Amino acid sequence: MKPKVRLYVEQPLGAAQQVPLTREQAHYLFAVMRLGPGAQVALFNGRDGQWAAEVVEAGKRGGTLRCVDATAPQVLPPDLWLVFAPIKKARTDFIVEKAVEMGVRRIVPVQTAFTNSERIRQDRLQAHAVEAAEQCGATFVPEVADLLRLDQLLADWPEGRQLMFCDETRAGRSSVLTDGLAAAPWAVLIGPEGGFSDAERARLAGLDLAHPVALGPRILRADTAAVAALTLWQITLGDWT
Amino acid sequence: MKPKVRLYVEQPLGAAQQVPLTREQAHYLFAVMRLGPGAQVALFNGRDGQWAAEVVEAGKRGGTLRCVDATAPQVLPPDLWLVFAPIKKARTDFIVEKAVEMGVRRIVPVQTAFTNSERIRQDRLQAHAVEAAEQCGATFVPEVADLLRLDQLLADWPEGRQLMFCDETRAGRSSVLTDGLAAAPWAVLIGPEGGFSDAERARLAGLDLAHPVALGPRILRADTAAVAALTLWQITLGDWT
Repeated sequence: MKPKVRLYVEQPLGAAQQVPLTREQAHYLFAVMRLGPGAQVALFNGRDGQWAAEVVEAGKRGGTLRCVDATAPQVLPPDLWLVFAPIKKARTDFIVEKAVEMGVRRIVPVQTAFTNSERIRQDRLQAHAVEAAEQCGATFVPEVADLLRLDQLLADWPEGRQLMFCDETRAGRSSVLTDGLAAAPWAVLIGPEGGFSDAERARLAGLDLAHPVALGPRILRADTAAVAALTLWQITLGDWT
Repeated sequence: MKPKVRLYVEQPLGAAQQVPLTREQAHYLFAVMRLGPGAQVALFNGRDGQWAAEVVEAGKRGGTLRCVDATAPQVLPPDLWLVFAPIKKARTDFIVEKAVEMGVRRIVPVQTAFTNSERIRQDRLQAHAVEAAEQCGATFVPEVADLLRLDQLLADWPEGRQLMFCDETRAGRSSVLTDGLAAAPWAVLIGPEGGFSDAERARLAGLDLAHPVALGPRILRADTAAVAALTLWQITLGDWT
């Protein structure tokens, strides 16, 4: 029977490996999900694939699982970053969740000239990424980076990483994605809802690796644009083929 | 100067046309947005394109605008329906918003075997569609249909309307979309998060016009799947080219 619960843990997973639970995990498994000794749980840790594990000990403040069988191999998403300007809390949470489901390797929140978000709760966003991975069946959890300024990110842009950027106020072609850059590392940059500043535009225009892409005739909110742009990338260059 | 406010109204729009405001519209324009006589507002009604209008009279319980110039032509989105099973309230609202931004002609909530939603607030969802259209620059507002049962919808499926369906538990090819069906009316059906029932699957399999499509190796939530599927459709057959 397929386990009903899928849980991310930090411990190593392997044949007969014991996995001690934190208080929160024990509460979730035994109080919320009402599992008891012998029940099966699917585990992943972002490195060792997915394992079926069985509850060995169930307590109020902790417990132990034991790995039984490897049930899915470790799968990395493509080497794709999602770079975006955080907006209102709920939509930022959504963007992180969507990035995990869509399959990215790293989530990079940036502050742009027209973003008023000066800080993010990196730990909260990372926890969201974990939850999304538990939910969507992925064996990998993308790292959520700390907020940094877009101009700094672009000034130190990694050599060879292609950048697809979506600027609502500017035309672009989606065909750039078929230019034979499938093997390269990539990033998708979602413009802030207020658009890029002139200085940001100039910097992007000066970046050889940057490819403007259009996302249709209507203005998309940032969370919609993130899913649309990642779809475009995944069906052309990613793991949706 | 570009008007900062974009408002959907029901009245006809045309040169020198006067547009009386409802109490809610007056409150929004004059109390919330603090506009006064002479201020410009962009108007659309889903039929007559977009007009720049000017505030003629601003009152607490009403007011009047007058159309000045036509600023954008009326544009219909492609003849595409989004059919989906309503889920939790916030995600249903998101799906309606996203459908408008992505460009569909009609939004059709359906009840499936594994959906527990027995009713929707059609008026609330329609108001969401209006807000999304105001926000995304569209001149058209898709109609949100009343909730009906998926098996009934499929039993009366309109002749010639192609159906792209996304079933998380079943494989599909995205290449069906290049089969030269660009001129046909279409619908995109997003499966419920619990999947389709066997009976629903059998009915879909029996429908000549139905095309299963895969959305990558991870399980997408319904709202993510809606945006991804609409992106796939729009870049292949729609108005994103």
